[in-house]
Amino acid sequence: MLTPFSSLVSRYQAIFFDAYGVLKNARGVLQGVPELLTWLTQQGKDVYVITNDASRSPTQMAAAYVHPEHGVLIPESKIISSGLLAKDFLRSKVRSGNVAYLGKPSSAFFIESASLTPVHIGACNNGDDLAAIALLDDEGFDWFRDLNMMLNLMRRVSVPVIVANPDLVYPVNEQEVGLAVGSLATMLERIVGKSFVRFGKPDTMMFSHAFACAHANAPDLRKSDVLMVGDTLETDILGANTFGLDTALVLSGNTRPDQAALSIQAKGIIPTYLCESVFT
Amino acid sequence: MLTPFSSLVSRYQAIFFDAYGVLKNARGVLQGVPELLTWLTQQGKDVYVITNDASRSPTQMAAAYVHPEHGVLIPESKIISSGLLAKDFLRSKVRSGNVAYLGKPSSAFFIESASLTPVHIGACNNGDDLAAIALLDDEGFDWFRDLNMMLNLMRRVSVPVIVANPDLVYPVNEQEVGLAVGSLATMLERIVGKSFVRFGKPDTMMFSHAFACAHANAPDLRKSDVLMVGDTLETDILGANTFGLDTALVLSGNTRPDQAALSIQAKGIIPTYLCESVFT
Amino acid sequence: MLTPFSSLVSRYQAIFFDAYGVLKNARGVLQGVPELLTWLTQQGKDVYVITNDASRSPTQMAAAYVHPEHGVLIPESKIISSGLLAKDFLRSKVRSGNVAYLGKPSSAFFIESASLTPVHIGACNNGDDLAAIALLDDEGFDWFRDLNMMLNLMRRVSVPVIVANPDLVYPVNEQEVGLAVGSLATMLERIVGKSFVRFGKPDTMMFSHAFACAHANAPDLRKSDVLMVGDTLETDILGANTFGLDTALVLSGNTRPDQAALSIQAKGIIPTYLCESVFT
Amino acid sequence: MLTPFSSLVSRYQAIFFDAYGVLKNARGVLQGVPELLTWLTQQGKDVYVITNDASRSPTQMAAAYVHPEHGVLIPESKIISSGLLAKDFLRSKVRSGNVAYLGKPSSAFFIESASLTPVHIGACNNGDDLAAIALLDDEGFDWFRDLNMMLNLMRRVSVPVIVANPDLVYPVNEQEVGLAVGSLATMLERIVGKSFVRFGKPDTMMFSHAFACAHANAPDLRKSDVLMVGDTLETDILGANTFGLDTALVLSGNTRPDQAALSIQAKGIIPTYLCESVFT
Repeated sequence: MLTPFSSLVSRYQAIFFDAYGVLKNARGVLQGVPELLTWLTQQGKDVYVITNDASRSPTQMAAAYVHPEHGVLIPESKIISSGLLAKDFLRSKVRSGNVAYLGKPSSAFFIESASLTPVHIGACNNGDDLAAIALLDDEGFDWFRDLNMMLNLMRRVSVPVIVANPDLVYPVNEQEVGLAVGSLATMLERIVGKSFVRFGKPDTMMFSHAFACAHANAPDLRKSDVLMVGDTLETDILGANTFGLDTALVLSGNTRPDQAALSIQAKGIIPTYLCESVFT
Repeated sequence: MLTPFSSLVSRYQAIFFDAYGVLKNARGVLQGVPELLTWLTQQGKDVYVITNDASRSPTQMAAAYVHPEHGVLIPESKIISSGLLAKDFLRSKVRSGNVAYLGKPSSAFFIESASLTPVHIGACNNGDDLAAIALLDDEGFDWFRDLNMMLNLMRRVSVPVIVANPDLVYPVNEQEVGLAVGSLATMLERIVGKSFVRFGKPDTMMFSHAFACAHANAPDLRKSDVLMVGDTLETDILGANTFGLDTALVLSGNTRPDQAALSIQAKGIIPTYLCESVFT
Repeated sequence: MLTPFSSLVSRYQAIFFDAYGVLKNARGVLQGVPELLTWLTQQGKDVYVITNDASRSPTQMAAAYVHPEHGVLIPESKIISSGLLAKDFLRSKVRSGNVAYLGKPSSAFFIESASLTPVHIGACNNGDDLAAIALLDDEGFDWFRDLNMMLNLMRRVSVPVIVANPDLVYPVNEQEVGLAVGSLATMLERIVGKSFVRFGKPDTMMFSHAFACAHANAPDLRKSDVLMVGDTLETDILGANTFGLDTALVLSGNTRPDQAALSIQAKGIIPTYLCESVFT
Repeated sequence: MLTPFSSLVSRYQAIFFDAYGVLKNARGVLQGVPELLTWLTQQGKDVYVITNDASRSPTQMAAAYVHPEHGVLIPESKIISSGLLAKDFLRSKVRSGNVAYLGKPSSAFFIESASLTPVHIGACNNGDDLAAIALLDDEGFDWFRDLNMMLNLMRRVSVPVIVANPDLVYPVNEQEVGLAVGSLATMLERIVGKSFVRFGKPDTMMFSHAFACAHANAPDLRKSDVLMVGDTLETDILGANTFGLDTALVLSGNTRPDQAALSIQAKGIIPTYLCESVFT
């Protein structure tokens, strides 16, 4: 039932990778990834990273994929993150003003680069004139104090709330997961009873964006020439299935090998292939 | 607080319209729409219809927008429906076989044109070898008998279930709404505990598609040059806001004038403009 | 892992049975049930039926449990139905007036016996002065026409909506289930965005009521002397667990033998015993 | 539309009070409460507190209602808390072993008094043999570290999870609310996909318990002789309405005066009376 990932490569012209659970975990890029990306490039494959992540800038994300000899393996322009979509929204829809945010200081990049002013939730004052609220990352704040402050802020002001990563959990290591900002967002959204604006898989916008880039490089490219590789059924596989791509579920992250068949059956989200990891 | 719709037109190069509640209701195209579309074309605006609808073919949809003198007002290619996305999915991901469906015979167009074989739920047999299930429309079947048959079918077979219109309700007239197929889908999805594949607003895929078409016609077009006009906060406005377009909520359909301000405040979905209708 | 039901009986003084999937199915009382109830009575067990059902009166419900020789096997007073709770609510909280309802004419018993006037949804007029709305049963009306009428009625009037059976499905035979009124209620509740008043398991009120009756018969009775026997984890077992009773899940109804272990694990609702049926 | 609370008292023999938002807030018992309780006792009313609270023992709860002259105003036996229901469940259904918990050390009372061993989540080891998990209070632990530990614990072990307070928020002061343990429970439950066992309003078990006590004191007492006074529509009012009691919504806690009419209309939960506070 498991297909070796390497046997799939020749069937596709472009490959879209999720980052966490596929190429990275909480400790960094997995061993073997630089060699894999080098090999794919040598095979002429167009490679993109499509990641629900607003914790750091594209420059910082790209810096993770560096080979000691071959240098940068994936250029910034091919790392499509949910943070970038959030930035585009802030720039085109909010335009100016203060944005209260949850996340690390490096998350604030997405607010600053949209020419708005980030205000860490812990530094928010009643008098602040806010243009939006952004939930960016699960780290960089005091959960007890700052989630309570965020809840009361959301009850007090009426501005768009954006969620730059809808994931509920992320893989920390082979055994453990961490609560992602999407879980905190869902909790707050339910209490305040409003609709937040979510960016990231399974919405198809990042797939559209990456496909448009790949298509610009290869005008004959069809959706059937692209493979999405991810570790999470509800985001990577559901979103790419909806967009019309072939999909490979790898068992190195959120979906554990002993539960994959059951999860696919129970959820009804069906990947084209099942692979142990990208290294097989 | 209400903006005349006609005063907005000069600010945009392309206009995306929702159909039901904006240009049509259950009785057909609203009086004045042919003149409006003629005028917009004369102004050089690029006009698209973006509609959560899988009840009839694009040809049939386009036939509604005809002017006695000027003929076809919106070509088929500019009517982007959720049914078309469902068709693309069936063609690229399912490819061949039988598809059990809920809907009118005219809905089956989207299955047939993907080169699959539609099987009306009422004609499904246990022995049918199904490749997918499609929930297309709320009419054309016996609700009691066929929703029960559909539920048991979904429990028995493990194939992708697609929902070609996620809307919960649609406006029937000024006072009343009807239960749309999205409500029936949500009821069934909850019971069987699986994830259905949904096509249509608020997912951004139809906006991407229409924007790509408009952009091909006018390479300088930016998202800020496009206005989405809709009657439903959770689909039209949320989806277009997420995609980065300006939005006008009209009060001629699902959102009633006496509840608009309250709904916007309660749901936190904020349109750029509020208009009484497209005729003001 | 399966325990013979007969081996459990000696450990308990009172036994509470769910009806559908345990003692009955859609075709009536299961073969062997009259003998089982006769035997339990001979053993001195106090027997109750606790059922999410508002489709017929207690007299009609009791008439199902009759032995050709021994006559009535469970007196009306020991059949605790969610319909009875709904009746009590209507009598104590609504008191008088018209009640629009979904269900068979025999469901209207619960409205009439609370001294209110039942009005079938299909016979409702705009001018009706309604005191409440009651969702009683999934049969006795035209689903397409009357669910749409009910939705528009709920949008128009502001009165309590009661759901006299929260079950999502009921077992029709060994293979198939039917959509229960609880599924229809959940669909409507989500659309209109209000909180309906639900009667029935897993709420503990019926268990309280039956326990109080059993306790009146045997003042020394403790909760640990009572066994609840049901076929549905989310209602029978969760509710009785919460109330503090021991629980036996039988595999003759909503929970199928090949899925029991998995469902228990997945849902985290843990019965004290697993039994094939009440006849083992 | 507002009824003076004092004018209601003569119509009822027993009065059930919610605690937070009615008699107390985060700073303690409200000024005037000792006098109110003294007066009610002098009028011969049977008074109970029915509270979703597992943060401290009944003794500690009762100690809050003391009058400098008249001493204890509500005996422990008339303070019915969700913590007590959780304790009964642990004693009757879990019986022995370790229980990992979220909450302050004083919450552990409900585990200890059921003769089980509380283990603070921060002190849990992989090797612990757990019999249950209990979510008791929102304080007494490090949210970031311990909610992540709790999530991973829930994924690893398969034991009942009890929630001893289903409230989503609690009033901190006139303007602000705090995230209650029910919000954290709902977030975790959604991620792990299991059904937790919830104790507290709107489930009717605490109303049953208090009514049985009041009925033992006054054998003629009917449900219509009891008034439930609360500040929260979804718990106090919905639960007591379901149980069949008259209800008074006070506007001194979770429901703010400027939103009461709207909330009642929007949610469809209808109290018998609206009162500014218990002091009017």
